[in-house]
Amino acid sequence: MKKTYLLAPGPTPVPSEALLAMSRPILHHRAPEYEKIFSQVREGLKYVFQTQTEVLIFASSGTGGMEGAVVNTLSPGDKALVVRGGKFGERWGEICQAYGVNFEAIDVEWGKPVDPALIAEALKRDGAIKAVFVTHSETSTGVLNDLEAIAEIVRNTPAILVVDAITSLGVVPVPVDEWGLDVVVAGSQKALMLPPGLAFCSVSEKAWRMVETSRLPKYYFNFKEEKKNIEKNQSAFTPAVSLLLGLKETLDLIKAEGLENIFARHDRLARATRAGVTALGLELFTESPSPAVTAVKAPTGIDGGTIVKTLRTKHGITIAGGQSHLKGKIFRIAHLGYADTYDVVIAMAALELTLSELGYPVKLGSGVRAAEEILMK
Amino acid sequence: MKKTYLLAPGPTPVPSEALLAMSRPILHHRAPEYEKIFSQVREGLKYVFQTQTEVLIFASSGTGGMEGAVVNTLSPGDKALVVRGGKFGERWGEICQAYGVNFEAIDVEWGKPVDPALIAEALKRDGAIKAVFVTHSETSTGVLNDLEAIAEIVRNTPAILVVDAITSLGVVPVPVDEWGLDVVVAGSQKALMLPPGLAFCSVSEKAWRMVETSRLPKYYFNFKEEKKNIEKNQSAFTPAVSLLLGLKETLDLIKAEGLENIFARHDRLARATRAGVTALGLELFTESPSPAVTAVKAPTGIDGGTIVKTLRTKHGITIAGGQSHLKGKIFRIAHLGYADTYDVVIAMAALELTLSELGYPVKLGSGVRAAEEILMK
Repeated sequence: MKKTYLLAPGPTPVPSEALLAMSRPILHHRAPEYEKIFSQVREGLKYVFQTQTEVLIFASSGTGGMEGAVVNTLSPGDKALVVRGGKFGERWGEICQAYGVNFEAIDVEWGKPVDPALIAEALKRDGAIKAVFVTHSETSTGVLNDLEAIAEIVRNTPAILVVDAITSLGVVPVPVDEWGLDVVVAGSQKALMLPPGLAFCSVSEKAWRMVETSRLPKYYFNFKEEKKNIEKNQSAFTPAVSLLLGLKETLDLIKAEGLENIFARHDRLARATRAGVTALGLELFTESPSPAVTAVKAPTGIDGGTIVKTLRTKHGITIAGGQSHLKGKIFRIAHLGYADTYDVVIAMAALELTLSELGYPVKLGSGVRAAEEILMK
Repeated sequence: MKKTYLLAPGPTPVPSEALLAMSRPILHHRAPEYEKIFSQVREGLKYVFQTQTEVLIFASSGTGGMEGAVVNTLSPGDKALVVRGGKFGERWGEICQAYGVNFEAIDVEWGKPVDPALIAEALKRDGAIKAVFVTHSETSTGVLNDLEAIAEIVRNTPAILVVDAITSLGVVPVPVDEWGLDVVVAGSQKALMLPPGLAFCSVSEKAWRMVETSRLPKYYFNFKEEKKNIEKNQSAFTPAVSLLLGLKETLDLIKAEGLENIFARHDRLARATRAGVTALGLELFTESPSPAVTAVKAPTGIDGGTIVKTLRTKHGITIAGGQSHLKGKIFRIAHLGYADTYDVVIAMAALELTLSELGYPVKLGSGVRAAEEILMK
């Protein structure tokens, strides 16, 4: 017997309320009972996105929503600005490239947040830029970017701001309407506490005006078609009905806890995790850490991949390693979504045991203790 | 208390084996246990598609797979041939149009199958045609097209044959390799007995050669990227892990029953349904009926929509009405996927009761009896 724990930054654990709802017999998507649930989902999404506008839903992983954000707002030859500070920032550039969108990249050293002034300068230098693509919480590096400052800059230009909030929505404030975020993309398998398979896009009035004139090709990820349908509690194509039943449950959980409490919980778990790993003598990978995931440098002489593998095989605990050139150099512990106090305790205890086994000098209990000091507050 | 029954042509009922597997705690997509299940899924899909080639998997509804089939094989300005004999045939044309593919349409009266000779003539007339898009089982009309004859024609030309087999795969034979079908698209929510949310595409050698030179834009539905990943038991983007765990179970059920038995079961249920409705004095909508779904003309003076609504609200039974210009004129009873003898009995009994309630003269039990005579064989 071995109990297993999922502490990776997506997919994340799903609460039993949602697991049970998703194992209900299939509801037909034109049945009145389904339409009622779907209309509650629409309201719940508006609450999480803090918006009065409609949040579009696609049966796809989050990347499908990112593709939708590009192909529905831009036209061939349009100019965009892409912030690349990790694997997911690079994805914005890859999508633009696939669709023939010219883009200027702001390349940020992995582990650093983007300096918003660079965005302001780029927009000033080139008035033709139609859209700015940023990653709020960059999962590959554990960096949180200063979205509020970026939004303030872009809001006063003709460009739209398109945000990958896949690991930030429901973790830190993403007040879509208040900050004037134009397209915000999220996915089901992060703080929305569901299996992967749904992407979400909020679309501002400013962005809808660009949708009207956009000429990039699209069919499955068509914002206009989806909006026409969602307003009738329908989807352009067969919706992922089971995931939507689960989403109704997790949105209810989110509303019951309240966004402010959810943000405070993630902040507390993240600070405790950082304190714990620091107490073990480990170094954080970034000085601008996301409350969704903590990226930690592997100690000298120990491969990060070995830490991840030992945690999984000996301790039944799944965390994430480094990606691309960070492979082996960092490991990442998530604390987002269906995560609470004792998930951090488990992570710290398992890290202490694993590091000891790998020959790294650890005072057992010291990481847990440092975490507890924050968790108890 | 009211028991409900889902007899619509998608989404279809999900067996409890899959419901239970999907309600397991989330497995991470890089966990060895997941990769093992995924490799079994790959083998199971090859069995159902009757192919030695890799079947690609996308987190999307079936339409995403259709879009993938277009954007991965063609280039701007390419010429295609599209068979349109219903709502899903029209979808091929819509996707081609969205991506700037020129196409010639063979418009077939809804309710009739396409005459394969028309495809042969079109290909002979225009040697520039790169791809032929057909619907095997047209769900909107209940028509089954003669795919074997079509395949024989296209196989000997430079064009590829792209098949929407969304409601035919796992219902009637779709021997991909034997018939030389180039791209075959399927979805999870039909005979694969899962919730909506997965699309599948098999790709022949001939089609892969076109993928190599295709210049239509794509990112999320990128065949080459997906192939590279699936060969390592991975996906280009976060896979819908829960649905894949369910798929492992339904593929096991399919293998245990055996394709030949599954085809025979669907044929028996379809013939029984046709015999039942005919015995009630109703008329079938098509002379080339699909074993997935039976389309029936609403009797004179009774709106098809009223039949559907009465079945749902008074009897708890979900069937489908007519779409587009067939709205009110037909209703559709499905018998695909997780469907067996007593689903047909329920459908016939409910139809008898409903028609009686709506004032249509019915000899109670006569539809059930006619169905039973076939079901018992």
